[in-house]
Amino acid sequence: MITRREANVSLLSTMMVAAVPGLAMAESQVIELPPPQTEGGKPLMEALKARHSSREFADRPLAPQVLSNLLWAAWGINRPATGLRTAPSSQGKMDIDLYLAMANGVWIYDPKAHRLLQHMQDDVRGETTTGQDFVKTAPLNIIYVSDAARMGKPSNADRMFNGIADSAVIGQNVYLFCAYEGLATVLRASVPGERLAKRLNLTPTQAIYFAQSVGYAKT
Amino acid sequence: MITRREANVSLLSTMMVAAVPGLAMAESQVIELPPPQTEGGKPLMEALKARHSSREFADRPLAPQVLSNLLWAAWGINRPATGLRTAPSSQGKMDIDLYLAMANGVWIYDPKAHRLLQHMQDDVRGETTTGQDFVKTAPLNIIYVSDAARMGKPSNADRMFNGIADSAVIGQNVYLFCAYEGLATVLRASVPGERLAKRLNLTPTQAIYFAQSVGYAKT
Repeated sequence: MITRREANVSLLSTMMVAAVPGLAMAESQVIELPPPQTEGGKPLMEALKARHSSREFADRPLAPQVLSNLLWAAWGINRPATGLRTAPSSQGKMDIDLYLAMANGVWIYDPKAHRLLQHMQDDVRGETTTGQDFVKTAPLNIIYVSDAARMGKPSNADRMFNGIADSAVIGQNVYLFCAYEGLATVLRASVPGERLAKRLNLTPTQAIYFAQSVGYAKT
Repeated sequence: MITRREANVSLLSTMMVAAVPGLAMAESQVIELPPPQTEGGKPLMEALKARHSSREFADRPLAPQVLSNLLWAAWGINRPATGLRTAPSSQGKMDIDLYLAMANGVWIYDPKAHRLLQHMQDDVRGETTTGQDFVKTAPLNIIYVSDAARMGKPSNADRMFNGIADSAVIGQNVYLFCAYEGLATVLRASVPGERLAKRLNLTPTQAIYFAQSVGYAKT
């Protein structure tokens, strides 16, 4: 879908947030991502060799193209005919949404249109941790939100099982993309899940088990 | 570590099993894997593009080099100085062992020496499922075994959380390696965890949440 918004993502992002303060669901609060670059680059085995956790982030935002590539790698559609993704999910229910905590608010990744929808304008990055200071510095904290409403009628155990597993496989994609791109990242289970769910105004069927900090490495 | 066993993996595998029937822990029941090939090959983004679940397997064993590369990609050591791996684990406890159910028995992957240690001689592939027929055909069913004994003093909830998450991230490595190599695979939560743990004579601290079938695609 080509729209006038596609021109300059980072500029638009700033512009839109500045233009409509306090307006939570305005149609214009969308960031169209540039198409992901899925050709070439480092071999899989090289990315596996470079995979590691890092907790030291430079304090600058991710370039729009890097964010686009990252989100596609994490949980993008790799089979457009069916909408299936780069990671599996329990019984194919695709219960996970990526909520992206950045300096300019919280955005939800929309894999179908490969764009971001603003969820709220607050910078909640520091609230995605139970006390790790580096989290605030990372320009992006991905919050993995599992929605049991997509699972049929799951038991509580199944909700947890699926939510944990379906977040973790995406987390590994993020790890490998960061190794491939030379970014720093760490997948964190030290997340105040219930408190953060309230802060994000999630529904009772939505739960958070993991967050993942991503950014350029501190040099 | 170079030993006389390194010569020909597939030949030795057959030989050793044939030579010592009924002897469960004989020192010779080891398969030294060829060193993993970690250079070159398909880019990460191409592997992500090709990632999918498949339940149709050809009935022939994996070549030793493919098995070697697969296991390194899954849960191999990518930083020899520290022993750290291609996938993360909760609090770095590395609670997961890969038990490999193949036609010639169950083998445990030893990442440090990059070799297989025989655990039992039975073909339990068909017992790693709650009823999916294709499982028996796959030459390899990886059983993810989480050992809470490595977690310190975890609560029951933590044991489960860590076991599920730490299996899933490795499972995603296997998915991507299979996409890279053109193999078929599916990560399965439909595993009779407790029954299978008994069948494998696991200790009370070991638990199974996932298995993953891997093989050549049926043509």
